[in-house]
Amino acid sequence: MMDTHLSRLEAVLAASAIDGVLLTSTESLAYFAGFEAQVEWGSAPWLPCPAAYLWLRGEGPVLFLAEGETPPTNLEFDLIPFASYAYTEPFPGISSLIAPLVSRLRQIPGAKIGAELPWLPSAVFASLVEACPEVHFVDIPSKLAELRAVKTAPELQRLRQAVKLCDRGQRAARELAREGMTEIELYSLVHAAMEAEAGCRVPVLADLLSGPRTAQVGGPPSSRILCQQDLVLVDLVARRDGYWGDSCNTFVIGPPSEPQRELFDRVLTALREAIAQVRPGLLVSDLDSFLRQRLVENGGSFPHHAGHGIGVAWHEEPRIVPYSASVLCEGMVIALEPGIYVEGQYGLRLESIIAVTSTGAELLTGFNHTL
Amino acid sequence: MMDTHLSRLEAVLAASAIDGVLLTSTESLAYFAGFEAQVEWGSAPWLPCPAAYLWLRGEGPVLFLAEGETPPTNLEFDLIPFASYAYTEPFPGISSLIAPLVSRLRQIPGAKIGAELPWLPSAVFASLVEACPEVHFVDIPSKLAELRAVKTAPELQRLRQAVKLCDRGQRAARELAREGMTEIELYSLVHAAMEAEAGCRVPVLADLLSGPRTAQVGGPPSSRILCQQDLVLVDLVARRDGYWGDSCNTFVIGPPSEPQRELFDRVLTALREAIAQVRPGLLVSDLDSFLRQRLVENGGSFPHHAGHGIGVAWHEEPRIVPYSASVLCEGMVIALEPGIYVEGQYGLRLESIIAVTSTGAELLTGFNHTL
Repeated sequence: MMDTHLSRLEAVLAASAIDGVLLTSTESLAYFAGFEAQVEWGSAPWLPCPAAYLWLRGEGPVLFLAEGETPPTNLEFDLIPFASYAYTEPFPGISSLIAPLVSRLRQIPGAKIGAELPWLPSAVFASLVEACPEVHFVDIPSKLAELRAVKTAPELQRLRQAVKLCDRGQRAARELAREGMTEIELYSLVHAAMEAEAGCRVPVLADLLSGPRTAQVGGPPSSRILCQQDLVLVDLVARRDGYWGDSCNTFVIGPPSEPQRELFDRVLTALREAIAQVRPGLLVSDLDSFLRQRLVENGGSFPHHAGHGIGVAWHEEPRIVPYSASVLCEGMVIALEPGIYVEGQYGLRLESIIAVTSTGAELLTGFNHTL
Repeated sequence: MMDTHLSRLEAVLAASAIDGVLLTSTESLAYFAGFEAQVEWGSAPWLPCPAAYLWLRGEGPVLFLAEGETPPTNLEFDLIPFASYAYTEPFPGISSLIAPLVSRLRQIPGAKIGAELPWLPSAVFASLVEACPEVHFVDIPSKLAELRAVKTAPELQRLRQAVKLCDRGQRAARELAREGMTEIELYSLVHAAMEAEAGCRVPVLADLLSGPRTAQVGGPPSSRILCQQDLVLVDLVARRDGYWGDSCNTFVIGPPSEPQRELFDRVLTALREAIAQVRPGLLVSDLDSFLRQRLVENGGSFPHHAGHGIGVAWHEEPRIVPYSASVLCEGMVIALEPGIYVEGQYGLRLESIIAVTSTGAELLTGFNHTL
């Protein structure tokens, strides 16, 4: 998998006369090195980054990894450790990361190095610029976003697993939600169900809103108590093996009212019709405007994107937005998430993950949206 | 609270002729601006930072905050929004953050600005250096660590709440652990208990190890099944309102064996004796060596620090390590975490949070360590 990703990178960079890359974003570390950075309790308060990936044209890639971090499994290229906090001697700072980077970069006088400046710590950048004044850093996140948009077969497999975890969470939410429970109680149970399925901790980005709060579109679970007839909006984005899944359902506590059923049907029909549109060659902006039009034609608003790509990031290209210039291609994996919201009153959103196939779309989401 | 923190900063910087600070670490944003960055699902894949804190000598501080981020409550100083991802128009990058920063920095020709280079994104740093070539950035994380080590009364209050949340988690772990349950199942239940107590999501760093895995000292919960006579090591580090609590207990599934009881008593006695040593003026290295000696005198190893400061970071000064040059001061809040480990066999660790008072120590941890 890593080989294919590096080949793609080489191809993308060939045109730009870039001599190599130094990558430090969580996403690139997962994509190119298979390193899964922890994201659940913030970064270590002494280290600027847990790892850095260096690739120079004509050489094999190298992963610099802070001591104490778990190396990727099946790593097929060099791993060079650098110092982290230890109880035996004072933390020496990042000198043991910088020194080997400098010696490699100096081998290519005037090298043009692709980097992710938004996610490259200034401590690393400033040290390298000082030690290698001839090296020229070029910001390449948009190139990386482009090459990641189309998934390989092994990536699709990972995404299926991540989506399956979200399915588990959605089924748990539907089964466990009860009048009298708080939003956060429901969320914790849902999270526990996903962790039991995965057998390990699962990072989750979630919106969990109930009653009038659903009109807010998004937000974390609160201590609001679920009441009869409440809409409950549950958007679960969970990571497994470095890849994120996504999902959203909205259901009712107790029997739905007629207007709730009509609202649900409108959104579900829009989602199904949008999925039926998906095929290689479709303009992303057309997909966005199709959904946007269908959702607001009978009142209510739709104040967010129609969807987004997903992979090692929970939100990546192609973003399904009115201003997109992208075209759907075979191998892209996208979330579609239509919703209808009425300010101060209610909101309802349904989301599925879809892989673009050679002829149309394959639905990866396995749970059934039910009100 | 923020006023006191800024006054401390002014005092620390006075000696260094620094004209102001630009701070971007999660810890500094919490400490100086009361901004609680989310840490549970990684950073937004399009933004280098959710916020930046600027203070220039003689002026009020300013918080630059990405659109969509939740502003701190009771913010008493200026807030300037900058663009984030939107569905209505393409993401413009960080220009709306850089432009107002540049116009402020240019007002002080040749300004010396304190920054946290390990946590300042290169995209911000490089843009500022290019636009304001006369500004000189000075790396100040060690000064910030120093001023944060002694807590104010409102901080102590926050820490009490965070520690109480850990108490809740430890009580839940002791009550809910059962033979046949997996480590991750136990962890999820414990996390749920803390979230129910807090009424919101709770970021947690946790070690949860059972049986022979306890010898590994640390690591996340796995799918290992808890068995009779297993030691279960539960280290819970939880954040509430921007402040972290910490705690560790180790207990047995079923009735403890005599050797398990002896081991537990040795570690608990060491912890109590160490707490009794705590007072202003004590050399941190003496506290470390006291614990280290007591723990290994009857066999087993103690291959980690004896403790650490805690606050807006889960790990900060003073670190209780052999090489520390620090002295305990009134107002410091520290974790003490003695443990004994025998490679490949077992490990047992107990941890409490202690505030250094004018005359000795106050135990903040409220749960009882029980085997």
